[in-house]
Amino acid sequence: MLKIKIIVVDRTRSAFLKQGETFYLKRLERYAKTEWVEVKPAGIKKGRPTFGILDAEGVSIAKNLVSRDYIIALDRSGKAYDSEELALHIEKLSLTHDRLTFVVGGPLGLSKTILDRSHEIFSLSRLTLTHEMSRLLLLEQLFRAFTIIKGEKYHK
Amino acid sequence: MLKIKIIVVDRTRSAFLKQGETFYLKRLERYAKTEWVEVKPAGIKKGRPTFGILDAEGVSIAKNLVSRDYIIALDRSGKAYDSEELALHIEKLSLTHDRLTFVVGGPLGLSKTILDRSHEIFSLSRLTLTHEMSRLLLLEQLFRAFTIIKGEKYHK
Repeated sequence: MLKIKIIVVDRTRSAFLKQGETFYLKRLERYAKTEWVEVKPAGIKKGRPTFGILDAEGVSIAKNLVSRDYIIALDRSGKAYDSEELALHIEKLSLTHDRLTFVVGGPLGLSKTILDRSHEIFSLSRLTLTHEMSRLLLLEQLFRAFTIIKGEKYHK
Repeated sequence: MLKIKIIVVDRTRSAFLKQGETFYLKRLERYAKTEWVEVKPAGIKKGRPTFGILDAEGVSIAKNLVSRDYIIALDRSGKAYDSEELALHIEKLSLTHDRLTFVVGGPLGLSKTILDRSHEIFSLSRLTLTHEMSRLLLLEQLFRAFTIIKGEKYHK
């Protein structure tokens, strides 16, 4: 069974998005061994530059990356798949990789180091989403991808 | 104050997405008089063709459209703005229109009649989203657009 690791920054603060994550994580378990990793956010202090925050969070993220994993970072600048393309892509990746790792940054995004280290960058939308909304959307799209791969009806 | 009408098909069945809608609708009220209209979904009966369902829902939607309103239909095939472009676009529209109407279809989308009658089509993502997720994302982006227009910090 494919292993999927999802690394995010900070715990989910919105109660309804947290419920949504739980909802989709449970459904994802039917198709992949799913691991959800929350790393500590870097403190946003007055005068601390953005890259300083991103680099600190990048260090925490990097501790959870395994070199043999295929790493997909989420960023607005990345490739915009449609749902069928994403499903096909995941299906192809699963032929050569046991483990896929998705990385979602905090409110400020991901460090250049993490983006550079990733095998690819995936964009959910041209729109700027909250990082918590991105997580929910990612989980929903992964679940949708597996229903497409398995030729199943999409169960809401 | 700008009036925004959001016409959707069916009530929201997911409890967490319903909570999210309430959350953002309340926040949107600071910037626009917001009206949320749920029209009845057409029954999906065995053998009933998709266009039959969409046309039936289109008739219910059309009853809520006002000819002087500027109508924006949501569809994956539409224009993909980024959040700043969307904010600028809404700001410009508000100079010439008192009322903007957004239309989100049901699980099967919108009828050709409704898409043709709309002034423009807006795409949230290349990905296929559930219609309930689309509503939440639309509300979040409208809220985000107003914080951009007003030059305010984005309040989560």
